[in-house]
Amino acid sequence: MSEKPVVLVDPHFRQMSEIFSADDLARLHDQFEVIWGKDEPMPLDEARQALTTASAVVCADWRYGDILPALPSLRGILTVSGGMPRNLDYDYCFAQGIRILSAAPAFARPVAEMALALALSASRSISSNDRAMRVGQEQWLHAGNVGTFMLFNKPVGFIGYGSLARALQPLLQPFGCPISVYDPWLVDGYLRSQGVTPISLEQLLETSRVIFVLAAPTSENQALLSRTMLERIQPNAVLVLVSRAHVVDFEALTDLVVAGRFKAGIDVFPTEPLAYDHPLRSAENAVLSAHRAGPVEEALWDIGSMVIDDLTAITQGFPPQRLQVAQPELIRRYMTNTIKKVTP
Amino acid sequence: MSEKPVVLVDPHFRQMSEIFSADDLARLHDQFEVIWGKDEPMPLDEARQALTTASAVVCADWRYGDILPALPSLRGILTVSGGMPRNLDYDYCFAQGIRILSAAPAFARPVAEMALALALSASRSISSNDRAMRVGQEQWLHAGNVGTFMLFNKPVGFIGYGSLARALQPLLQPFGCPISVYDPWLVDGYLRSQGVTPISLEQLLETSRVIFVLAAPTSENQALLSRTMLERIQPNAVLVLVSRAHVVDFEALTDLVVAGRFKAGIDVFPTEPLAYDHPLRSAENAVLSAHRAGPVEEALWDIGSMVIDDLTAITQGFPPQRLQVAQPELIRRYMTNTIKKVTP
Amino acid sequence: MSEKPVVLVDPHFRQMSEIFSADDLARLHDQFEVIWGKDEPMPLDEARQALTTASAVVCADWRYGDILPALPSLRGILTVSGGMPRNLDYDYCFAQGIRILSAAPAFARPVAEMALALALSASRSISSNDRAMRVGQEQWLHAGNVGTFMLFNKPVGFIGYGSLARALQPLLQPFGCPISVYDPWLVDGYLRSQGVTPISLEQLLETSRVIFVLAAPTSENQALLSRTMLERIQPNAVLVLVSRAHVVDFEALTDLVVAGRFKAGIDVFPTEPLAYDHPLRSAENAVLSAHRAGPVEEALWDIGSMVIDDLTAITQGFPPQRLQVAQPELIRRYMTNTIKKVTP
Amino acid sequence: MSEKPVVLVDPHFRQMSEIFSADDLARLHDQFEVIWGKDEPMPLDEARQALTTASAVVCADWRYGDILPALPSLRGILTVSGGMPRNLDYDYCFAQGIRILSAAPAFARPVAEMALALALSASRSISSNDRAMRVGQEQWLHAGNVGTFMLFNKPVGFIGYGSLARALQPLLQPFGCPISVYDPWLVDGYLRSQGVTPISLEQLLETSRVIFVLAAPTSENQALLSRTMLERIQPNAVLVLVSRAHVVDFEALTDLVVAGRFKAGIDVFPTEPLAYDHPLRSAENAVLSAHRAGPVEEALWDIGSMVIDDLTAITQGFPPQRLQVAQPELIRRYMTNTIKKVTP
Repeated sequence: MSEKPVVLVDPHFRQMSEIFSADDLARLHDQFEVIWGKDEPMPLDEARQALTTASAVVCADWRYGDILPALPSLRGILTVSGGMPRNLDYDYCFAQGIRILSAAPAFARPVAEMALALALSASRSISSNDRAMRVGQEQWLHAGNVGTFMLFNKPVGFIGYGSLARALQPLLQPFGCPISVYDPWLVDGYLRSQGVTPISLEQLLETSRVIFVLAAPTSENQALLSRTMLERIQPNAVLVLVSRAHVVDFEALTDLVVAGRFKAGIDVFPTEPLAYDHPLRSAENAVLSAHRAGPVEEALWDIGSMVIDDLTAITQGFPPQRLQVAQPELIRRYMTNTIKKVTP
Repeated sequence: MSEKPVVLVDPHFRQMSEIFSADDLARLHDQFEVIWGKDEPMPLDEARQALTTASAVVCADWRYGDILPALPSLRGILTVSGGMPRNLDYDYCFAQGIRILSAAPAFARPVAEMALALALSASRSISSNDRAMRVGQEQWLHAGNVGTFMLFNKPVGFIGYGSLARALQPLLQPFGCPISVYDPWLVDGYLRSQGVTPISLEQLLETSRVIFVLAAPTSENQALLSRTMLERIQPNAVLVLVSRAHVVDFEALTDLVVAGRFKAGIDVFPTEPLAYDHPLRSAENAVLSAHRAGPVEEALWDIGSMVIDDLTAITQGFPPQRLQVAQPELIRRYMTNTIKKVTP
Repeated sequence: MSEKPVVLVDPHFRQMSEIFSADDLARLHDQFEVIWGKDEPMPLDEARQALTTASAVVCADWRYGDILPALPSLRGILTVSGGMPRNLDYDYCFAQGIRILSAAPAFARPVAEMALALALSASRSISSNDRAMRVGQEQWLHAGNVGTFMLFNKPVGFIGYGSLARALQPLLQPFGCPISVYDPWLVDGYLRSQGVTPISLEQLLETSRVIFVLAAPTSENQALLSRTMLERIQPNAVLVLVSRAHVVDFEALTDLVVAGRFKAGIDVFPTEPLAYDHPLRSAENAVLSAHRAGPVEEALWDIGSMVIDDLTAITQGFPPQRLQVAQPELIRRYMTNTIKKVTP
Repeated sequence: MSEKPVVLVDPHFRQMSEIFSADDLARLHDQFEVIWGKDEPMPLDEARQALTTASAVVCADWRYGDILPALPSLRGILTVSGGMPRNLDYDYCFAQGIRILSAAPAFARPVAEMALALALSASRSISSNDRAMRVGQEQWLHAGNVGTFMLFNKPVGFIGYGSLARALQPLLQPFGCPISVYDPWLVDGYLRSQGVTPISLEQLLETSRVIFVLAAPTSENQALLSRTMLERIQPNAVLVLVSRAHVVDFEALTDLVVAGRFKAGIDVFPTEPLAYDHPLRSAENAVLSAHRAGPVEEALWDIGSMVIDDLTAITQGFPPQRLQVAQPELIRRYMTNTIKKVTP
């Protein structure tokens, strides 16, 4: 009989080999009694039964129903996606000290790197000049730099200061850019302690040369960047959208970018794939990316590594240390519609 | 009668307003008795006459002939280009303590930023995915990331460790990349003291995931990156060429990039404009830039600012502090063909 | 009738003016309906009554008894000391989402600075040479540097990787020291993600040139640094003790330092004031500090600033952001003896 | 017959084993045909003869007389002290491209570390509290911190911005201190490009909480910090003197520190050893160090390492890269009295 902690690993839609490197897979099996651990979704009845003895479950979402009170040994629910599980009784978990974790931090670095890449591609006209060279219409030297600018020392604005912002901030550090932040969930003193300046959204848009949209979608920030707000952006500024299209009035964004009001690097869209006749597809001022910021090989393996680390922490009786921890104050703000209550 | 130091400012092919901001222009006239200071080239006879009383000359090249022994007050020759003046008797200047300076440092930051931008555009497939989106052939999410990689912690190689490299190094610092350097002009102990690892060119090419070609052209490094050398580069690595095409067997580079052996970000070409039917113009694996890394507005104003700072230093009897100082050991290596001797 | 959140501020043993700058005091009253807010302890009955309407309480400890279920609006308990409140039903708070916070983070920077100061004073013999000069027995130049060493690149060990360690790490960064960490509460992957190397306590003691004892006292680490462990320390290494004497076999430490086995910088003692005839008081190899690392003016004002910031966060429905948050998994480890349960 | 470059190594007053580690000694002999290489001074006639075939000489000073024109192969004169050689015809060397180098950079890091150590010892009262504990008169906790301050964010002033300052600046970086600099040899634009603020000496003294005296002694800066200047220092500020006592009116400094006007960390004195009855020896506000900042083991080995690196560079025809290079504009300012001219 094994004395290792029992964990249920049921990661579908992710595949085992996608999130666990060979070394990590060995580590997983070395440290835990792994139930399932296959690519296909575990049959529901079987999963519910197995959960009754599991210390933790690794899954893509909570699809096991209202069975929490029947799971006395459960200490953690770890998702392998970037979001928090849906259809889960969070209050019950909080009251019982069951940790609910998302893999969002695994995506912070790749998205931050992409955000910088999109910003530089727009500010230095990398993609547009490359396109021009392919049709023999490029301008050389100074003439090719009209409208470009260097990032060094330019005022930068972050909309949202979560894990993406914290991963992007060090990448900008050598450029010496003063960073202003709009994040209504964070108090000014915290932002200042992180070396950034709290600012209103209006001021941020009016004063920043590069604006990074990094806010997670919430019930409060749909189309936060309305047409009126977007119109405050400086001519020739750069807007980089890497968190979610939800945060932006995308039609207004499209109009303004197509009209050449400012430049934009865009990785996320309201519908994906973007319609083939969408006007952004021919906008000279845009750098377009097909939702590729997060899902890179290294990030997916970071999920596996972080999951094992936090399984270790939780099953040894310590707080989770690498994944994002659901906070009672925020969970409803992220996902009002999807929360269930099972206990009366 | 003015007691300000007399300086001759004859910057053609640069224009005065291109290199001096309004503030710097005022500073220039405030601190110095400026002769000429116009966009057109100063008539030669007039210039030669003026030089007899000048403490320093700001120019694009040395076009004043073999008159150095007739210029007793001359303490500095400052070029507004990125190169050292040609047709100048360097030995005479070194013996007399006349400082010869180039504006190369003004270009270090913009070129370094462009080098990072090209590297990220290649490694994360920014430009190629953007191109694909414009013709409706993009891949989304993971599928769009095949062959891409994150820069974090990847081994990086610098070919050449001069001002470009020293400006690029801090931009890479937050990515945690170990940096190897091949620079035959620098001793290992110096390189190690700068936090980089000296390495042979062969090893650099074989082990680096991103290779930055940053070496200035010399009489010794033409086609240093020969076909055989280029073939050592890893599949799917990224080569960024921002210093000079001189350093590379460009035909071999073209063949290998067109064949998809590795990726490349290229800002400089053996002939510019690049021939309209050049195969690189349709190479999927290339990010092309029309020699735009250096000549950005901010860099040109830095030239003016640095020139005034070093005019101040030199005319007050101090060593120059901001521009690049010609070194006796190196000057012939940079430009063997162009050096003249006027004194017997 | 005020619409500001009601907070009870009862900071005794701290004084109001000690923790709140004039600006912060104004901010406190501007944002909150402050009850009490005086230096003396609030009379208990009065305090219990006031708590029934308070959103949060700022206090030095929980001295209000088993009244939590009668406090429906309470969202936070914020201490102005560096510890967690005693005699509190933590389970009830966790279940109800009442945040329990300590001001420990306000002390992280002053203690980290003191730790570096003690390390340098020991490694470079600052205090001992200064003492020698006062009695005319100093050695000059090289002779005065026998047994000293530079911190640059020396292996450093941290015992404990909490807020002190995270504040000390950036101070050591320019010295290029590789940092190893022993912290049994943290998983290896987390430590590696912070740029430090997990290591066993034995190895840490044997390989580190400077050892920082930064662990908070717990029910598990009393005299963790036993005599046997301390004897593993290298000759001429430096041990810096700034968290708690609890962690060390202090008699053994005294013996070894008095015997000259290694050097030590010590800010905390098992009994304070240290006995006047204690042998450490004449130990040549020790740098002694009278528990002065934390209580500096700037740190105390940081308490006030952090308290107001987190009162703001909590009363607006957000998670606390600046103070240390009690974690269910750890709270019993810190303070087993002092926890009460009020609810059956 | 050897083809290695011939170098004369005559380092007395330093000893060979003091400056060359075993590895470096092997490297020296591996790369060069070493003449002499012993601890005793080489007999003069023998040395002069050997110099006629040497590519470079490693020495403590130039004691070989007016023989430069007879040394056709000499490319470098490298001192193993922190100063430039005396009794040398610098003009001849500059005209011939003979590099003159001092080992000052080897001392930059140990002196910078000591400067920080002295600053912290003064600002946090490390040495004074340690002294108090040895006589049972210490104050504990807050009471022991009266008059102390944290370095974080405090305005710092550098007097002199040479190699010491550049080594100290990164050590202060994590403390976030704004740094002002007074250095009349450097132009404002250069200082700003290094991230520091040029300032007048008066303003520096009046506004800095910690003042570092880092200027090398010159013919222009004797007693630059006069009594009047020193009186501008803020009450309770800290002055750290690590370059040379030459720069300060030492009697005035003594009076002010003894009177408790400000604190001081002092490593250098006008006469050494300091008189046994000197009032500084009992000044409560001083931290005293017996000229120990520079001569540490690691720094001396850095001399050897740097010497070999620059011998390599020079004999291969490259500029020196690690030691300090004599500059024509500055050499007379450093040492007017000591320069000789041999050529008519």
